[in-house]
Amino acid sequence: MRLLSFELNGAPVMGVRLDEEVVDLSVAAPDLPRDIRALLAAGPEALAAAERAAEAAPGHARHPLQGLRHLVPIPRPDKIIGLGKTYMKHVAEMKAEASSFPGMFLRVPDSLVAHNMPIWRPEASDTLDYEGELMVVIGRGGRMISRENALEHVAGYACHNDGSVRAYNYIPSAVTAGKNFLNTGGFGPEIVTADELPPGCKGLRLTTHVNGDLRQSADIAELHWDVAHLVHLMSTIFTLYPGDLIATGTPSGCAAGSANPQWLVPGDVVRVEIEGVGVLVNPIADAPKAAPDDRS
Amino acid sequence: MRLLSFELNGAPVMGVRLDEEVVDLSVAAPDLPRDIRALLAAGPEALAAAERAAEAAPGHARHPLQGLRHLVPIPRPDKIIGLGKTYMKHVAEMKAEASSFPGMFLRVPDSLVAHNMPIWRPEASDTLDYEGELMVVIGRGGRMISRENALEHVAGYACHNDGSVRAYNYIPSAVTAGKNFLNTGGFGPEIVTADELPPGCKGLRLTTHVNGDLRQSADIAELHWDVAHLVHLMSTIFTLYPGDLIATGTPSGCAAGSANPQWLVPGDVVRVEIEGVGVLVNPIADAPKAAPDDRS
Repeated sequence: MRLLSFELNGAPVMGVRLDEEVVDLSVAAPDLPRDIRALLAAGPEALAAAERAAEAAPGHARHPLQGLRHLVPIPRPDKIIGLGKTYMKHVAEMKAEASSFPGMFLRVPDSLVAHNMPIWRPEASDTLDYEGELMVVIGRGGRMISRENALEHVAGYACHNDGSVRAYNYIPSAVTAGKNFLNTGGFGPEIVTADELPPGCKGLRLTTHVNGDLRQSADIAELHWDVAHLVHLMSTIFTLYPGDLIATGTPSGCAAGSANPQWLVPGDVVRVEIEGVGVLVNPIADAPKAAPDDRS
Repeated sequence: MRLLSFELNGAPVMGVRLDEEVVDLSVAAPDLPRDIRALLAAGPEALAAAERAAEAAPGHARHPLQGLRHLVPIPRPDKIIGLGKTYMKHVAEMKAEASSFPGMFLRVPDSLVAHNMPIWRPEASDTLDYEGELMVVIGRGGRMISRENALEHVAGYACHNDGSVRAYNYIPSAVTAGKNFLNTGGFGPEIVTADELPPGCKGLRLTTHVNGDLRQSADIAELHWDVAHLVHLMSTIFTLYPGDLIATGTPSGCAAGSANPQWLVPGDVVRVEIEGVGVLVNPIADAPKAAPDDRS
């Protein structure tokens, strides 16, 4: 099943994509929870009910995919864990040292935008870089989850652009700053449930294109710690909850990895694709000038 | 005004402390929002109304401070920003390099416990360390806040123990891991509104005692970036919301700063005091063994 969130008449709606159509679950299955986080928390039976309802949905619950206004699939997860140094070729291109544990940070929800929405180049720096990544979506929560059981806690997968403001990432201990500027990352367009994909997405190809040029290409199997291992490791630190997101890090090919980095500039278009998972597209725009003490 | 959260008959209640008594605001001012985050979002008039109601509270709205079961004052802020390298003597003792920007990470709410509640030494490592800190509580939200106006966005201050699992902090890029183990930090007992304290708490002394031994002692004025500057800097990255927390970093005297670190062990008691702000006490206990795939 391909779960997504979209805007309909100004309100957020949870939907299921069936080819070129999207089913509005608030119409097709009004008794189910109304957002993806709550649906995941309700467990596998609720997911199965959503799938049945989508397939049986009447015409008035169906909308064309074309022109859909996507929202971030899970707008307010309990936490968004970002990982780094998980693809060794990227570690090498960044001239970083491999570690016994992945690099780790948290992102605030405000730092992510939906499919097709502009990613912002912030006022503070022009060193905006893309990072195509596999996003893991937690279904069943828990802590101290064994690696062996970890994939049972994964509800699905999505595409992620872990957009990074490198000038801040380069300041020792300030990587979190470079990962949290408003609207600098992308997440979506949809969450594909794990049953439709190979375990841990091994064998699937991740590519990132900027303005049609291929910049990143890797097999998810190149992850130094596989998805099960990463979920296990995070569960030794955090209590994981339904809807939590784990961004699994980026492979080589970032602008920052080149001798002469071409940072993203307004007008660029970044496309992150993971085979079978989806295609996430975001144009780049300058952050609108904030008035001092802007309350937005 | 001294705002706090406590448990009454199994439910969370917002209160105001008046000397040795605590006023239950749900009784004294039933029309006000029911938690501190919502009260701050309601603005200065709501705060003033809470203060008036507390002073006029009838006897049945008052409870003795003695024996009170404190809760974390703001259990679910939008974000908890942790800063580091903000006191230069601490930078020196950690043999770290001073930076042009403070060290930065985010903590999840689950990593913090209330006054008097045990801080957990995790299963994963015995390198648990204390960090006494001033916690800044945002009142009015905003972004791109000037340094000049920044203190107008601060609602109040509290004590914080930024408990850290050093073995993880030492892994490059994994400081976030060392700051997010379940129940490893403390926050409370109360939030003192900014009008009762000097601007940015300059001139107030912060001390940390372990089992009665003085380990940390610094004037908040030793902050390399003062509170106004830190709020300004964070607002250039994040949109700040009412109830957001900024932990301003710790001065010298941590266990990690000594040649022969004495990590915290079960039975230890850590006491963080900031003059005029409060006294935060937390005993240390081993994390209870989690069953595999514990859903707690």
